[in-house]
Amino acid sequence: MSRAIGYAAQSAETPLATFHFERRDLRPDDVAIDILYCGVCHSDLHQVRNDWNNTIYPSLPGHEIVGCVTAVGSDVTKFKVGDMAAVGCIVDSCMKCEPCCEGQEQYCSHLPTMTYNGKDRRDDSPTYGGYSDHVVVRDLFVLKLPDGLDPERAAPLLCAGITTWSPLRRWRVGPGSRVAVAGLGGLGHMGVKLAAGLGAEVTVLTTSPSKEKDALALGAHKVLITKDRPAMKQAARSFDLVLDTIPVAHDVQPYMHLLKVHGVHVIVGAIEPLPSVHSMLLVAWQRSLAGSMIGGIAETQELLDFCAAKNILPETETIAIQDINHAFERMERSDVKYRFVIDMASLKQELSAEAAATA
Amino acid sequence: MSRAIGYAAQSAETPLATFHFERRDLRPDDVAIDILYCGVCHSDLHQVRNDWNNTIYPSLPGHEIVGCVTAVGSDVTKFKVGDMAAVGCIVDSCMKCEPCCEGQEQYCSHLPTMTYNGKDRRDDSPTYGGYSDHVVVRDLFVLKLPDGLDPERAAPLLCAGITTWSPLRRWRVGPGSRVAVAGLGGLGHMGVKLAAGLGAEVTVLTTSPSKEKDALALGAHKVLITKDRPAMKQAARSFDLVLDTIPVAHDVQPYMHLLKVHGVHVIVGAIEPLPSVHSMLLVAWQRSLAGSMIGGIAETQELLDFCAAKNILPETETIAIQDINHAFERMERSDVKYRFVIDMASLKQELSAEAAATA
Repeated sequence: MSRAIGYAAQSAETPLATFHFERRDLRPDDVAIDILYCGVCHSDLHQVRNDWNNTIYPSLPGHEIVGCVTAVGSDVTKFKVGDMAAVGCIVDSCMKCEPCCEGQEQYCSHLPTMTYNGKDRRDDSPTYGGYSDHVVVRDLFVLKLPDGLDPERAAPLLCAGITTWSPLRRWRVGPGSRVAVAGLGGLGHMGVKLAAGLGAEVTVLTTSPSKEKDALALGAHKVLITKDRPAMKQAARSFDLVLDTIPVAHDVQPYMHLLKVHGVHVIVGAIEPLPSVHSMLLVAWQRSLAGSMIGGIAETQELLDFCAAKNILPETETIAIQDINHAFERMERSDVKYRFVIDMASLKQELSAEAAATA
Repeated sequence: MSRAIGYAAQSAETPLATFHFERRDLRPDDVAIDILYCGVCHSDLHQVRNDWNNTIYPSLPGHEIVGCVTAVGSDVTKFKVGDMAAVGCIVDSCMKCEPCCEGQEQYCSHLPTMTYNGKDRRDDSPTYGGYSDHVVVRDLFVLKLPDGLDPERAAPLLCAGITTWSPLRRWRVGPGSRVAVAGLGGLGHMGVKLAAGLGAEVTVLTTSPSKEKDALALGAHKVLITKDRPAMKQAARSFDLVLDTIPVAHDVQPYMHLLKVHGVHVIVGAIEPLPSVHSMLLVAWQRSLAGSMIGGIAETQELLDFCAAKNILPETETIAIQDINHAFERMERSDVKYRFVIDMASLKQELSAEAAATA
């Protein structure tokens, strides 16, 4: 076992604070990673606050991990010490069921092991996430960080990036596609960048005319104000895909009107019961209302390689881990453009200070 | 103009009764068809009763038409006198928009012209359906009835058949697919036959154990009783497609649990607001809730050719047109296995009797 340090919540009511714990000894197929950066996802906040009634405490979140390989197990061939690596939302799965065999480990029939708030498949120990100094992960679930991809800004690709990439790829977005992105937060801003990077014409759907400038700066070609009824009417039946990143339940019907024949409205944000949809919106144009959750390991690697090749990076604001509780507050009021990334040097300084104080 | 006779309703409150009217003179691209058989669709009843608040009276329904070509316009090359032909739910469209150019005329951006309760695109006259002795239709919207397809039993392919065929083709059902069919009426029984014909393993979903025998006789491989919770749980995540032919709004969530990763639940029956769906059912397995409406002309021809090659025919009960109001009553209480077909010889006898009485 190796000593580790991170920031964890001891209960739903307590803030994140320094937490000492142990990472497992390397198994033959394990990779140890010194964490350099970790993105801050809205799920992290939901989990530590027990919003989904399933939190295991202490809760140590973080699933947008970028770091450097410091050790590898005896059977590992894909990584060597010194490689830049990344870890996303899942760290294991059965690797035998149909979804796993199709590279869709996130939909593992026996459920994937989540990077935090999970249980290790072999020893049943709790999983602790990336708000920590290092992590030990099964090699098949470790991504290679391509050369040329800024490790600090790359971190949010591991969740916000793949969550929008997977549906764009699933529904074959490319040159000639018309994509609308609803919601312009951590997920939405990546949706815009990635859809544009794939060659689609991208429109941001928003209630706020004030977001127009930002949307265009991110690479959107157009902005459609959803309160503007004549504009919405004019845009009816014009999109192949609506990528819906709005994080709370909402009426999707005004958006469904925007879809062409065979168009798909895909929900990646809201995990809640949806208001009623009139089936005519689906039936009359053979449309679909779909959902999508993160992505598989191979498609996450594909995303990282694509972003390196196209020089696409999330917009980030770097923070020290000591500022995480304040960052959560700001995230709750959407006061972030568009993703916080923790510089884990701040945690290591804390560790050094502790060591000096103890000595 | 040519004199025509049919059965029409003069108002929402009156039964169908003999109605004399005129069909237009042949345009260069028109085909005149002597109607031999016409299927009875639940939509016919909805339309004459003004259930959709859009009925034009007199209302003369019927969109599952099979007959024999009696005359062709000067530009028609695809048909000649004596050919067996068929007409479905649409008789015209713009033929210029994207859906029309993709062979999806039923989703014409300028709306297709319906076979009845529509308005002719050129002279704005009302369209009258197949409960009549003959019909005049633009050649592009007339199907060829393949040799060897029983014209009497083929009629319901033009609506019930294509309505189930189009989604089966759209979502690539074939050998290896697992398809569940919900509802076992006019649409559902065709869904079973066509999915099985395409090589899928077909399961009928029903609340009634009493339907098991019928389902298996139609070609289903299995029956799943939706009230049997352990059986439903065991069947979770096992279907590629749920073809939902249930004609009224209902909670689709129990069915969505049955879908595999990337599975599609497609609604072809209910045209109503749907009860709330929890987005997790879509998100967690990248599933879709879709809809589908009839089909395009080319895919309808494909269906007819497929059914001729595979000897697949609807189960029908033949009636005289004089029994149509009684058939509507029976259809309302689902007392039909599985589709009424009007033998139009009964109408022609009425016409002869009238002529004799007048003479």
